[in-house]
Amino acid sequence: MRYHVDGRLVPAEEAAVSVRDRGFQYGDAAFETLRAYGGTVFEWDAHADRLRETCAALGMPEAVPEDCRARVRETLAANGLAEAYVRLSLTRGVQSGKLTPDSAVDPTVVVIVKPLPRGGPGGDSVWDDPAGVATADVQRVPDAALPARAKTHNYLNGVLARIDAEADEALLCDAEGHVAEGAASNVFFVRDGTLHTPALDGPVLPGVTRRVVRELAADAGIPVETGAYDPAHVRRADEAFLTNTTWEVRPVATLDGEEIGGGPVTDRLAERFDALVERRHY
Amino acid sequence: MRYHVDGRLVPAEEAAVSVRDRGFQYGDAAFETLRAYGGTVFEWDAHADRLRETCAALGMPEAVPEDCRARVRETLAANGLAEAYVRLSLTRGVQSGKLTPDSAVDPTVVVIVKPLPRGGPGGDSVWDDPAGVATADVQRVPDAALPARAKTHNYLNGVLARIDAEADEALLCDAEGHVAEGAASNVFFVRDGTLHTPALDGPVLPGVTRRVVRELAADAGIPVETGAYDPAHVRRADEAFLTNTTWEVRPVATLDGEEIGGGPVTDRLAERFDALVERRHY
Repeated sequence: MRYHVDGRLVPAEEAAVSVRDRGFQYGDAAFETLRAYGGTVFEWDAHADRLRETCAALGMPEAVPEDCRARVRETLAANGLAEAYVRLSLTRGVQSGKLTPDSAVDPTVVVIVKPLPRGGPGGDSVWDDPAGVATADVQRVPDAALPARAKTHNYLNGVLARIDAEADEALLCDAEGHVAEGAASNVFFVRDGTLHTPALDGPVLPGVTRRVVRELAADAGIPVETGAYDPAHVRRADEAFLTNTTWEVRPVATLDGEEIGGGPVTDRLAERFDALVERRHY
Repeated sequence: MRYHVDGRLVPAEEAAVSVRDRGFQYGDAAFETLRAYGGTVFEWDAHADRLRETCAALGMPEAVPEDCRARVRETLAANGLAEAYVRLSLTRGVQSGKLTPDSAVDPTVVVIVKPLPRGGPGGDSVWDDPAGVATADVQRVPDAALPARAKTHNYLNGVLARIDAEADEALLCDAEGHVAEGAASNVFFVRDGTLHTPALDGPVLPGVTRRVVRELAADAGIPVETGAYDPAHVRRADEAFLTNTTWEVRPVATLDGEEIGGGPVTDRLAERFDALVERRHY
């Protein structure tokens, strides 16, 4: 396997960043998790927009290089991968050594890939089973401390939530106890035929798959509401599922031990997601 | 310059960690900033204790290797440094690639050093001037989201506060608006002869220098109170100063444009700090 580091393709085992890189020292870096289907990246424009938004939130709005997409393409090609997981990271680079960043940024760009077979119709799903989910005691970092829309290498909040939850996925709530998101996913639930998901005015990452699923629901005539919900709302739901770039649409088997499962709405959205990927990429 | 990376001394320009190291990908790492005076590390035991506490908070209580101190010593010796800044980092290492960490941890240990002349009596101070400080709009990450006692590579909260404050140091407050700490320092102020500092039940890192200064104040018969304070309390103070391992005791020139400055209490504590270093290290 070869990775793309700082403009060059290098063997994976040699792919490294300086210990003085701010991405290492402070987690001072933006990233995107991408997925390639049939050789092209799903929703590239949306991911590129969010990467730019993260960089803007970090005070380095001009940091995304113009050839970002080319670097991803080169990495996929160098490894002969058409179906792949891709992690694209962009750090503030090596600077003076002070905590306050220099205004001039020479970013370090890293592209990591690994094979990830398409789930989809007739394929193997990335996840083995519907997710066991547990509400974490760890609170979601508030937007006032770290902008929720920024996807950064400061990911310990999610790591600690996963450790705490001892489940496939941890559900994180905000300071008021409202459901925010999973450690690495957005959460949806169905009640009386209506799809619900936490609104983006809470500390919720605007997931690309979240947005796609909302559009698919609108196309299918499934009503969607966003709002502030307690974990009990999810536990009492008729169906629940998680979304992210690698899981796509993953049913929630249980939340805090209470059985929920997918169902007809989850199935319809998963089928429409598969059809969308099929239409666009194959 | 040579750094210590994963058990080996390497030239600084080659010192790197894998792009798959969790310390890079998630900021999933503990660190300590240390200071060597006269060839030995100031308050090693306190820093080692806090490093273990950080690792425990990150769910890897056994991660600190027994030869940590030896690695720091070797790095100082390899560079012929007696007066130095040292950054000791310990990451969760390279794992499976999942967000949920594996329980078996093979940590990556990194030691970075740079020359840092002793400030002290007759020496040049590390900082050029008393600090200009500004209260940041960025809120300190609450303890419920990331344990405040843990010193980790998730340091974007401080980075964003520094960018926001446009000052030598940013003052961060908690969700209730109470003063927590500086982006990279603890804060003290003097009012009517009594020294005040935010209590550790707020989201405050238990600074090693903070603790030493409290002990020095007790020795000097200066009353110390901890509590919950607003920025206005600091702005109205007779004196104010910041503490950390590199700055030692640094007076606050201004907070939000209001002049404060050091004064007799700050001077006495700085002198006693210098005397302590002199007694222990020279």
